[in-house]
Amino acid sequence: MASSMPRKPVVIILDMAKGYGWKPGSFGYDMVTNVRKLKDTAYAANVQVVHVNSMRRPTDNLEEGSRMMEGTKNLEVIPELQPVEKDIIIYKRYLSGFSHNDLDYTLRTMGCDMVIIAGASTDNTVLWTSADARQYRYKVVVVEDCTMVHREEEPPGAKEGALRIIKNVLKGEVLPLDQVISKYLKPSRK
Amino acid sequence: MASSMPRKPVVIILDMAKGYGWKPGSFGYDMVTNVRKLKDTAYAANVQVVHVNSMRRPTDNLEEGSRMMEGTKNLEVIPELQPVEKDIIIYKRYLSGFSHNDLDYTLRTMGCDMVIIAGASTDNTVLWTSADARQYRYKVVVVEDCTMVHREEEPPGAKEGALRIIKNVLKGEVLPLDQVISKYLKPSRK
Amino acid sequence: MASSMPRKPVVIILDMAKGYGWKPGSFGYDMVTNVRKLKDTAYAANVQVVHVNSMRRPTDNLEEGSRMMEGTKNLEVIPELQPVEKDIIIYKRYLSGFSHNDLDYTLRTMGCDMVIIAGASTDNTVLWTSADARQYRYKVVVVEDCTMVHREEEPPGAKEGALRIIKNVLKGEVLPLDQVISKYLKPSRK
Amino acid sequence: MASSMPRKPVVIILDMAKGYGWKPGSFGYDMVTNVRKLKDTAYAANVQVVHVNSMRRPTDNLEEGSRMMEGTKNLEVIPELQPVEKDIIIYKRYLSGFSHNDLDYTLRTMGCDMVIIAGASTDNTVLWTSADARQYRYKVVVVEDCTMVHREEEPPGAKEGALRIIKNVLKGEVLPLDQVISKYLKPSRK
Repeated sequence: MASSMPRKPVVIILDMAKGYGWKPGSFGYDMVTNVRKLKDTAYAANVQVVHVNSMRRPTDNLEEGSRMMEGTKNLEVIPELQPVEKDIIIYKRYLSGFSHNDLDYTLRTMGCDMVIIAGASTDNTVLWTSADARQYRYKVVVVEDCTMVHREEEPPGAKEGALRIIKNVLKGEVLPLDQVISKYLKPSRK
Repeated sequence: MASSMPRKPVVIILDMAKGYGWKPGSFGYDMVTNVRKLKDTAYAANVQVVHVNSMRRPTDNLEEGSRMMEGTKNLEVIPELQPVEKDIIIYKRYLSGFSHNDLDYTLRTMGCDMVIIAGASTDNTVLWTSADARQYRYKVVVVEDCTMVHREEEPPGAKEGALRIIKNVLKGEVLPLDQVISKYLKPSRK
Repeated sequence: MASSMPRKPVVIILDMAKGYGWKPGSFGYDMVTNVRKLKDTAYAANVQVVHVNSMRRPTDNLEEGSRMMEGTKNLEVIPELQPVEKDIIIYKRYLSGFSHNDLDYTLRTMGCDMVIIAGASTDNTVLWTSADARQYRYKVVVVEDCTMVHREEEPPGAKEGALRIIKNVLKGEVLPLDQVISKYLKPSRK
Repeated sequence: MASSMPRKPVVIILDMAKGYGWKPGSFGYDMVTNVRKLKDTAYAANVQVVHVNSMRRPTDNLEEGSRMMEGTKNLEVIPELQPVEKDIIIYKRYLSGFSHNDLDYTLRTMGCDMVIIAGASTDNTVLWTSADARQYRYKVVVVEDCTMVHREEEPPGAKEGALRIIKNVLKGEVLPLDQVISKYLKPSRK
């Protein structure tokens, strides 16, 4: 709300799932280390971590195929971000992290008023999730070095273009991990 | 739609989950046999079965407690309705079968235009699911002998009162199982 | 939320629109005086009044006809509850007050955590609005003498049956107007 | 759906409202002529035109101000696109054309399976509306010379960047008006 300081952030990690091919040496894999650090820092700050991964059903009648079919291991969070016992796992049915699921309900009922967003891709799931979060009136922070355009064929500038929209249109904050930590994820004493 | 005959029904079974105490000899257990028959008939008619069970998260901040906490066996479909490999399992976050989940999206993308509703309770989940289905513009059929008010303390007439609303207000059909079968679930030849 | 006292109620008046035939001497017209008193009391208590009326579009492809077609005077709040300049007017596209509109968004952004519901019909719009309010996690209060089943043909007990569901299933409060006033709508001094 | 040809397009015109300063000689005003032609062509092809304009309420608790406050003339469609009697007018509560309103319900109930999107801004409302349309499973077409980034301060390439996302990520078609007409809006004979 306009008049109050955000008080309760949640860290949302998008599509860091086995089905998307995060393997050592693969395109963009270096980012995984940063996301791991984000998750550990969230734990230390007593901030809830929510993984939102894609899920498709065989009945979805999609034109395109999908690697993220319900019931397969591809939907699982990658080993580098395990274990997930303390985290919340939510499946999104299409592009946005809020797509046809309980993400908004879950955030609201826990009193969350701010989302710290990481994951892939910046010009796809990260972008739509930022927009929906804004429209549901959460404060939006995107972690610049914890997001990427995870498709090799895209032109240079694809990530920067999406971040410009998040900043200029959605009025989100785009910050590197160290600044996110010092500003929003300081270790909790309790 | 107004001008077309319904063509694609889906059977929705509500809250027949372990956490609700469906045990031989318990209040209302007799109905389980009917729901099993409904499911088998749906299979024979090549009609998709969807189970919608409740799911709560520890962060939900509920005034009341819940037996349906995420990660527990209470959320599983009861043994009498197993196996569920051919079925779709969807979790509802609160009362209605459409509550904060992908039920509408899943029904629409499979081309469903009619729901055949069974399960418990008639004056709770069945009622709200019928209303939401109507509002999303599916034709609504409730199976009279496959639903009940699954709380012993309620007065006589609680079930009939809810069915009156489904008929008079929601313009749903309320039919016994044998009529549902002969009208909508005839065995398919393919 | 579980741990906090409700602080910000909103009064929601459902379907008290010209198209529903609220005329002196007509079935149920006596209730209009009570709803007028509820509205005046809300004003005195600095509580926002929201009217939610039905709206249909010619493209809706409804099986049934409708008196509530977009662009007609039938959608207007009845003269007895005018003027409405200080109120919020929201249109619902089908049965529930939350149906395909901005009611939830509007309530949330104003910080509302409790709805005081009045209007017609108890076993239709009032019932679905109460259920949706509960599922969006607002505290629900229904004003017993400001609601009715506004269809003469329904059996006795239709209203009481719907109120039983609101109390027993939705855990809503059902109170007469004078108790609602003394408990939630005391005149404000500011 | 995967297996069927789109059959029923709807033209959606976004935020061509008085409050956004579309005046002769102003930044981007030249586009208005194209959008007028799109509307006339839709009429000739018997395709429904839907205007979706922004609407804010004084209770919205926004950090930023807004020119689009409920009850003001700023919300009206600009004179150049009048009259609107044959069109559908829908208000969006925040950024996307689908934001907290009945756009999806209205499109679905009329049997629409494809949206032809025009208006402003390409990297804001047009982008979010395209994404939501895709996620609700409508085929998406954006009219390249009927959309712009309607903010002078943005860098060159802002429009192209947003269109790249619509094409590469959302798999939408981006076509100039003359191709949209010849492909989807041929004059109807009835």
